[in-house]
Amino acid sequence: MTLTIDINCDMGESFGAYTLGMDEMVIRHISSANIACGFHAGDPQVMRKTVQLALKHGVAVGAHPGFPDLAGFGRRNMQCSLEEIQDYVTYQVGALQAFCRAEGGWLHHVKPHGALYNMAAKNPDMVQAIARAIHALDPELPLVVLAGPNAEALRAAAAEEGVQVILEAFPDRAYDADGALRSRNLPGAVIHDTALAAARALSMVQQGMIEAHDGSKVAMQVRSLCVHGDNPNTVALAATIRERLEAAGVTIAAA
Amino acid sequence: MTLTIDINCDMGESFGAYTLGMDEMVIRHISSANIACGFHAGDPQVMRKTVQLALKHGVAVGAHPGFPDLAGFGRRNMQCSLEEIQDYVTYQVGALQAFCRAEGGWLHHVKPHGALYNMAAKNPDMVQAIARAIHALDPELPLVVLAGPNAEALRAAAAEEGVQVILEAFPDRAYDADGALRSRNLPGAVIHDTALAAARALSMVQQGMIEAHDGSKVAMQVRSLCVHGDNPNTVALAATIRERLEAAGVTIAAA
Amino acid sequence: MTLTIDINCDMGESFGAYTLGMDEMVIRHISSANIACGFHAGDPQVMRKTVQLALKHGVAVGAHPGFPDLAGFGRRNMQCSLEEIQDYVTYQVGALQAFCRAEGGWLHHVKPHGALYNMAAKNPDMVQAIARAIHALDPELPLVVLAGPNAEALRAAAAEEGVQVILEAFPDRAYDADGALRSRNLPGAVIHDTALAAARALSMVQQGMIEAHDGSKVAMQVRSLCVHGDNPNTVALAATIRERLEAAGVTIAAA
Amino acid sequence: MTLTIDINCDMGESFGAYTLGMDEMVIRHISSANIACGFHAGDPQVMRKTVQLALKHGVAVGAHPGFPDLAGFGRRNMQCSLEEIQDYVTYQVGALQAFCRAEGGWLHHVKPHGALYNMAAKNPDMVQAIARAIHALDPELPLVVLAGPNAEALRAAAAEEGVQVILEAFPDRAYDADGALRSRNLPGAVIHDTALAAARALSMVQQGMIEAHDGSKVAMQVRSLCVHGDNPNTVALAATIRERLEAAGVTIAAA
Repeated sequence: MTLTIDINCDMGESFGAYTLGMDEMVIRHISSANIACGFHAGDPQVMRKTVQLALKHGVAVGAHPGFPDLAGFGRRNMQCSLEEIQDYVTYQVGALQAFCRAEGGWLHHVKPHGALYNMAAKNPDMVQAIARAIHALDPELPLVVLAGPNAEALRAAAAEEGVQVILEAFPDRAYDADGALRSRNLPGAVIHDTALAAARALSMVQQGMIEAHDGSKVAMQVRSLCVHGDNPNTVALAATIRERLEAAGVTIAAA
Repeated sequence: MTLTIDINCDMGESFGAYTLGMDEMVIRHISSANIACGFHAGDPQVMRKTVQLALKHGVAVGAHPGFPDLAGFGRRNMQCSLEEIQDYVTYQVGALQAFCRAEGGWLHHVKPHGALYNMAAKNPDMVQAIARAIHALDPELPLVVLAGPNAEALRAAAAEEGVQVILEAFPDRAYDADGALRSRNLPGAVIHDTALAAARALSMVQQGMIEAHDGSKVAMQVRSLCVHGDNPNTVALAATIRERLEAAGVTIAAA
Repeated sequence: MTLTIDINCDMGESFGAYTLGMDEMVIRHISSANIACGFHAGDPQVMRKTVQLALKHGVAVGAHPGFPDLAGFGRRNMQCSLEEIQDYVTYQVGALQAFCRAEGGWLHHVKPHGALYNMAAKNPDMVQAIARAIHALDPELPLVVLAGPNAEALRAAAAEEGVQVILEAFPDRAYDADGALRSRNLPGAVIHDTALAAARALSMVQQGMIEAHDGSKVAMQVRSLCVHGDNPNTVALAATIRERLEAAGVTIAAA
Repeated sequence: MTLTIDINCDMGESFGAYTLGMDEMVIRHISSANIACGFHAGDPQVMRKTVQLALKHGVAVGAHPGFPDLAGFGRRNMQCSLEEIQDYVTYQVGALQAFCRAEGGWLHHVKPHGALYNMAAKNPDMVQAIARAIHALDPELPLVVLAGPNAEALRAAAAEEGVQVILEAFPDRAYDADGALRSRNLPGAVIHDTALAAARALSMVQQGMIEAHDGSKVAMQVRSLCVHGDNPNTVALAATIRERLEAAGVTIAAA
């Protein structure tokens, strides 16, 4: 049997005169791109070019909606109503779908960004609002959510609206014993050693588990690995993880 | 034979805490709504509610994209490249299409707003850029453009991209002898007498002509009449025009 | 001895094509205007006109900085750092000071808006960050904060930066027995009877106390009364309160 | 007699998560910084840090107001009214003055950015509107404008409002025989050879003239040289010009 895993990364985060990320380098190593939709990053020009880039490289296109907070890059919690969240997702996903259609591709998944992702990871009602927006646009569109202690609650919330989830994990992040991401406020939260991150990725794929920060083993069964960019060197991280996985016979493909 | 004409009006121009227009009143008298898409006016909540309102009243939903200039309500000329214009239209139309899809409707037409509309009315290259965006999203979507001396050039520019145009006229605006809108800088540019505006609407529909400001007759063959809101009393204007047309046996229906 | 109290109201909340509030009516009844600074409401044109209006009526000009959230009217909590809050206040207060200077007036006070005000009312660190911004611009500028159980902590936080506070109360809001505003989620939180609100205003001024929702008496010694606009009829509220206070011999003047 | 000239450069153009420019490198070679004010670039955090940087290096702080067009980096012409332009300048200059005051410095000059600068260079009415805003904030604040065929008209327009101008030239730009900047649409508009640009800078300072693109000599008497950043290598350009000028005994100091 061949093991298969997705590698996803945030992309299309440039805006106007501002360039962010090294999309043309990273795209070579991933199977799914989460493309910013203009609220926290990205603009219509960047969205079109990033969709073109993904299609050219055979990388699955995902919508990456965020809070309407360009100044804060969508990383600041905002207390929006569930209706606002649903409508923000409909708007942004619809805009990205348009660029997919215009460029002859189609939208493959939705992954919320930053504070929207993090708040939703703790709040099934927010996941349900997001799923409601997604299902009304395309009932086949899956939603990427964080694996860990809340995974079942998030999966159930999305299922209420008929939406499937893709669980993802972070090979370059430490985990607590309960499967939660180790808080960034604590030392060791981010793993800067790309070889170690790649080894952890392989452990997730082959054994469905990961060593927590306290040394215990945690189940971590996921369909996608996120290499997004808290490591300064996303390109090297993505390349190393892909090489290690492929060397072990794992197929890299969109979930 | 029954004469048929469309009556269109801009809608969904509220934003956040700000309410603009009397959409729930106007919607009763029109057959097409041009819904703002969040760049010059409108927001995701307003877009959803306005799509719901239009669908409830059987009014055709149009996208009303504008320049990214909320502070100027999209009325200030902006020197954007043709690529920027194309991408701005793709983004905004895609976002509105999403709300249509989510609410069980479909998008019927596209009409640019304000400065984008006015600049395009003099610039076939801009019409072509807009049409390029539209055709890639839905080759059946028509583009509403201004009737008058440039109509043929605009029609040809849209046709280059495979897009049909809907010519529209303004019953409450004075026209020059060549069929151009009389400049707002000149006296008499706006007709505030709703009965007179309704009579002019009827003349356009029944005779395909209108009396210009100098008293000459100008051909004005259009498929849609715009009642948007430079008259303070859009509700009365729309109601009066509709009554007068229906009393004369004209059917009001989306183009 | 003559009793003196300030009546303050939010103003200048229009934006571009959008009009909000009835500033020209309300201004006749108040002694202090809190003018929006362009982040949650207001724009440079509105700011200039509102400063002119206040100066013309002899009303003290206050800066009313908010979160950068026009779509949410500054009413949504945003998790900003203390440095961000300090810098947002510096920016907005500086911009309004400029219009004051340009129009021959001067800035009299600062009152945060919406979510920034409410979050600060529970968080002395935020008050200190705001005070730090204020003191660096003008050490004489006072900061308006909410009277109630946290008043001493807020006063102390501002004093750390050398800034004086003006305590304010809301005559049209119910209070809990501890002096906190009754939550809007509970019935009876807003008092819609303007005569009752005026009687409560008088009680605050003459007796330094107010009847809480449970009938107990709460000390409520304040230098300013806010008539801002959760009552739909701000004009009547302001007028009624002013009349009642003046009839009782109270002088209305900026704090 | 010692010759003195100012070297100015745009700074503080980063925004939120987006970094632009190499301010910490460039600042070592210039005498005046034009700091973006949040409309076309910059944000409150960036403004404070850039003011701190300039003060630390003894570089004069200038306000660099632009059109409200972050997506277009203020480079797109916008048809604003003169009142809007005046108010936009008041707002932005006021905000930057606040950061100067807060950091113990003071504002030295105002230089419009991008499309606002270019439109004003052809439109004395716009210069007058900008000057009106400046004078009301600080009658001593000078306005930086483009040297060339319109210089006298621009100077006169600013003088109407009591504002002095500082004429500036671009050592890395080609000029037409009449002293106008050679259009960027034409070949040779930008001089990429930093040594040649430095030689041209010296010619401007020592001889008050420059060789036009057609080989003729044009008078170019200026008080400031702009090294802003259409050359990819602004750091090298600034460093080379400064070295060359200082080697020739020219003093570099704010105008």
